[in-house]
Amino acid sequence: MITLKINEKRFLSDFAGLSKIGATPEGGVDRPSYSPAHLQALAWFKQYAAGMGLQAMVDPAGNHSIRLECAGPSAPVLLMGSHLDSVYDGGRFDGALGVMTALEVLHTLQDAGARLPFNVEAACFTDEEGTLVGMLGSKAVIGEYHPDLLDQGTVSREVILQAFQKGGLDVDAIGRAKRDPRSLYGYLELHIEQGERLYREQTDIGVVTGIVGMCAFRIVYTGKANHAGTTDMLHRQDAGLGASAYNLAARKMVLENYPGCVVTVGKTHFKPGGVNIIPAQAEFSVDYRSIDRTQLDALEADLIRLAHSLAEEYRLGVQIERTLRHEPALMDARFKTAILDSAQMLGLSAVEMPSGAGHDAQNMAVVCPCGMVFVPSVEGISHSPFERTTDQDCVNGANVMLQTVLKLAEG
Amino acid sequence: MITLKINEKRFLSDFAGLSKIGATPEGGVDRPSYSPAHLQALAWFKQYAAGMGLQAMVDPAGNHSIRLECAGPSAPVLLMGSHLDSVYDGGRFDGALGVMTALEVLHTLQDAGARLPFNVEAACFTDEEGTLVGMLGSKAVIGEYHPDLLDQGTVSREVILQAFQKGGLDVDAIGRAKRDPRSLYGYLELHIEQGERLYREQTDIGVVTGIVGMCAFRIVYTGKANHAGTTDMLHRQDAGLGASAYNLAARKMVLENYPGCVVTVGKTHFKPGGVNIIPAQAEFSVDYRSIDRTQLDALEADLIRLAHSLAEEYRLGVQIERTLRHEPALMDARFKTAILDSAQMLGLSAVEMPSGAGHDAQNMAVVCPCGMVFVPSVEGISHSPFERTTDQDCVNGANVMLQTVLKLAEG
Repeated sequence: MITLKINEKRFLSDFAGLSKIGATPEGGVDRPSYSPAHLQALAWFKQYAAGMGLQAMVDPAGNHSIRLECAGPSAPVLLMGSHLDSVYDGGRFDGALGVMTALEVLHTLQDAGARLPFNVEAACFTDEEGTLVGMLGSKAVIGEYHPDLLDQGTVSREVILQAFQKGGLDVDAIGRAKRDPRSLYGYLELHIEQGERLYREQTDIGVVTGIVGMCAFRIVYTGKANHAGTTDMLHRQDAGLGASAYNLAARKMVLENYPGCVVTVGKTHFKPGGVNIIPAQAEFSVDYRSIDRTQLDALEADLIRLAHSLAEEYRLGVQIERTLRHEPALMDARFKTAILDSAQMLGLSAVEMPSGAGHDAQNMAVVCPCGMVFVPSVEGISHSPFERTTDQDCVNGANVMLQTVLKLAEG
Repeated sequence: MITLKINEKRFLSDFAGLSKIGATPEGGVDRPSYSPAHLQALAWFKQYAAGMGLQAMVDPAGNHSIRLECAGPSAPVLLMGSHLDSVYDGGRFDGALGVMTALEVLHTLQDAGARLPFNVEAACFTDEEGTLVGMLGSKAVIGEYHPDLLDQGTVSREVILQAFQKGGLDVDAIGRAKRDPRSLYGYLELHIEQGERLYREQTDIGVVTGIVGMCAFRIVYTGKANHAGTTDMLHRQDAGLGASAYNLAARKMVLENYPGCVVTVGKTHFKPGGVNIIPAQAEFSVDYRSIDRTQLDALEADLIRLAHSLAEEYRLGVQIERTLRHEPALMDARFKTAILDSAQMLGLSAVEMPSGAGHDAQNMAVVCPCGMVFVPSVEGISHSPFERTTDQDCVNGANVMLQTVLKLAEG
């Protein structure tokens, strides 16, 4: 039996073409949602469909897709995809490689005249990176779009609406992008790892076990501003000390009691912020993640307890606000096995691993079985023009995706 | 023998008048250098001289003073003073009470027709608070003015020059404010404590032993920005953790090994500062003070060692820049004794204590014997409209200043 493979040359050449859209001098791309470059990438997507003799579909949330009928018109759809928007000054692989792979798999299946028990659709989702709202397209598909989201975006509602206008989005229609879960066979996504594990361990393929639950707090400690010279060390209420102690203690707690979890203080601000003034206020962010919901709950409770106990120790007031909570999303067991078997069949090394970053798959997992394939990020760099994945790893990933579709088709 | 006392009623009423200039709704004053309110306070000073039948002198650095001849014209001068400028939205006691006291002491000596072995001069120094440069007037008097100071101010050279113009200062003449040290008998200053020790311990008078040496570092730790979700806890180079560890470790070090010293991290900034990004850079300030030069040197060396050892521990790059170094300034033993004896004679409790804050006396101490009197700050609050010293404490302080002048005159 000859193993079906993607058209490597076409795949790499098409991807090089896509990478030119919004290209930056350092080798990345700058394609925030509905920027001219992003709109050009969406036009490129439609053009790709035309090249296959098909017509791209655009749903009310702006998600673009191309459907290949490999079963009857009433058969469920195996969706594959990722996103074509990027962070500002981002890399050319994050999202785009997943879309390119889905398209090449579709194209290969078309070339082979494949008959499958499901239809196959290659999609790019709207605003995954959240330069406007964040994972807007996949939220709409699973029926979790709500107009309030536009007030919780990374920019103002006005800016979001202006961008929607450029993208041809009717804000009142977005909710209608919801798809009937029964129409979905499942969802498959290839993405760069964005961490350095595969690269460090020289492993070809990551089989994603799930996408971690992501939460964040904004914590504000309040002490008393005072003169740095005239207030002795034992009579201070230094909010900055509380924030510093929190950073170290949270890390220690995770290292000791929460294996596999992460906690990060990425943002810190002391007020009033004078060199010679004891900080009256320290505001900081706490990002914490776990693949397991029970563990995530326990970690969250411990992080809150820690904030209170340090407030007491340093004689500070404390306010804690949860600014984010995404539940962990597990990948489907049968999809994982299909990915693992595909890698093995292709002679590629593979390892099961959680995804520490968020992806549209975490939304899709709410409504249908999902699988995710990771390919190595050189030195773990991402969200940077220096993000890179080798051609060989791109090709390996695409072939694993193709084989996974075929394996799922075997039942 | 009848003890000479200040004119309490006149003193409090004049001070109430001064406090109205630039008054803020919360009861403070807003008189940054050469603001309209500050200029009005300087006009008030000149008016005060006129009320005594004298003429205020203005030196090329904008220092205003009134001289009372109590000895021959060639006798040395005992200078008393403080400043009439305030921090933005400051209190009405910081500086102004010292000037008011000097004026009232002068006035009382004039009323009494005092003959002393020195002449007495009440002064207000230019820009003590440093809304432009910092202690500019006293620096000029001791010959430490240099045009480069205008490039090291808290605002740009242009803004400083504009302010000078409003104050009628000729920038090229400032250096000529230098006084011959032989012409100075000494310098006496009354100031609010700005700490809460006198208030807490219910002590009337602080006899300042010296003004602490004040230094500051700007430290920058450099790590690696990375994804907060995909980078495991053991493979991070988190610059924020280094900064947090520094804050706690510096405090511990001072508490354990540097009694009487203080260290403060007042300013901290993590970059890039995203909730979900590991900080690539953490920049923070370190303010450290000691009354003893040897101890200050040792503390400084230890703080530098600490920065390097934590850089190693957290795998970070480190840059250390010393942004400030003022040497400790000791008060004169005979002046201290005169202040202590005066307090005792007036039935006031007194304690020797260092000044953790900077004052013009630290400059004057370079060229002549100095003494400083502290009066209690209610709850230790300063640089705030809520700064307060009771009328009784103001009067006590002024009487101690008067007696000190008389005691010094006894030889």
